[in-house]
Amino acid sequence: MLYLIGMGLCDAQDLTLRALTILRTCEHIYLESYTSKLQCSVEQLSESVGQPIKAVDRTFVEQQSDIYLEQAKNKNVALLIIGDVFGATTHTDIFLRAHKAQVKVEVVHNTSILTAVGTIGLELYKYGRTASMPYFAQGFTPATPYNIVKDNLSLGLHTLLLTDIQADKNKYMTVKECLQQCLELEKSKRLDIFSKETLVIGCARLGCPDRVIKYGTIAQLMEFDFGAPLHCVVIPGKLHFVEEEMLALWR
Amino acid sequence: MLYLIGMGLCDAQDLTLRALTILRTCEHIYLESYTSKLQCSVEQLSESVGQPIKAVDRTFVEQQSDIYLEQAKNKNVALLIIGDVFGATTHTDIFLRAHKAQVKVEVVHNTSILTAVGTIGLELYKYGRTASMPYFAQGFTPATPYNIVKDNLSLGLHTLLLTDIQADKNKYMTVKECLQQCLELEKSKRLDIFSKETLVIGCARLGCPDRVIKYGTIAQLMEFDFGAPLHCVVIPGKLHFVEEEMLALWR
Repeated sequence: MLYLIGMGLCDAQDLTLRALTILRTCEHIYLESYTSKLQCSVEQLSESVGQPIKAVDRTFVEQQSDIYLEQAKNKNVALLIIGDVFGATTHTDIFLRAHKAQVKVEVVHNTSILTAVGTIGLELYKYGRTASMPYFAQGFTPATPYNIVKDNLSLGLHTLLLTDIQADKNKYMTVKECLQQCLELEKSKRLDIFSKETLVIGCARLGCPDRVIKYGTIAQLMEFDFGAPLHCVVIPGKLHFVEEEMLALWR
Repeated sequence: MLYLIGMGLCDAQDLTLRALTILRTCEHIYLESYTSKLQCSVEQLSESVGQPIKAVDRTFVEQQSDIYLEQAKNKNVALLIIGDVFGATTHTDIFLRAHKAQVKVEVVHNTSILTAVGTIGLELYKYGRTASMPYFAQGFTPATPYNIVKDNLSLGLHTLLLTDIQADKNKYMTVKECLQQCLELEKSKRLDIFSKETLVIGCARLGCPDRVIKYGTIAQLMEFDFGAPLHCVVIPGKLHFVEEEMLALWR
């Protein structure tokens, strides 16, 4: 059996009882750690679970699925996925490959950033499409996140802007870097979506006890130290007065 | 301290280790059980947690918040919320009231139906606004869910259609009842959104080990027995070939 198990957003304390019971029956446990980041090391996680856990990269998960699918034919194998299981496209693909290899799959869900962001107080049903901000490089300054924010704003919707992760380089984009790039995109697109005065929400470690939420102008948030990753940014759309009251808590 | 704790979608096995540790320090634990439904009784839940838990209704949570906010001033009090904490508007309101009463609040997240629905294989970022189908009554046949599906389809987006819950009457809408009402709305609106041949996905108990997912025409799904609640329906938008492959698993 192949178990696809959501890890939640912080550490071993986020495992559900169901997940823990299953993990203790598994002969191989892999942690997919390239689409997100936990607040604990894989060693700490192994210790809490009481089983060896191996951190694996995208190449292993996507291109070497034969390895764990073969193991799952006659043993219990778990792939731990940070957040909920189907946040990233890849994981649907694993489900399909397992099916083709006649390996049974069971899913154990957990918290996703897509609903944990509800904690800042903007209604979840009023979020439009989620955007991702990649690290810009020479000749690579994609306007997709800018366009998604623009489209959402035109419908009065909020935008969750996820920040880039380059786990292999231990690089995790900060709120400051993300907002810097928003301003860069504004310079080229000039549609008046972002300025230093635009009010946005910066977040760090959502879903963790030490999560930070700050509401302020882009200029203010760029000065603020959000601490360890992961960070994300929310661009508010049209605000209901209850949403405004909530945001006031994070000024 | 007031703890707002997500329960996940099924039973006590869905509690996270963090939630369980906190619950064991609480002198009062309330289960909000009017916006969703667990697969276990409150007695079973109490037994698993090892603490008395009281099921409470909307009146208690929304109109008698003084009671639990007063308790939370000098004791640990938990409000258990099925799914993730901020799926329903009410819970933002509790957060605000606690703040005004100078009661500290901590949030423990869990799985929401909004991301657990990812298990059927349609990309989460391609869902449009979520719709809710209420039980129709004489003079009450709101077209809102129909209009949301229509708007989402026009953008190629999928729709999660949540079914009505009348916990006080122990009434939980089935896939069949929901689809029946979709066809009724079609009769009056006539925009060619639903017919007996429309392909949709019916789901029951998503997030639970015995979850059921069926893909078929409305006529086929109306004949199918999905078993115990909760049920929901997904109306697919424009499908990617990987999504089509996934849906084929549930034919």
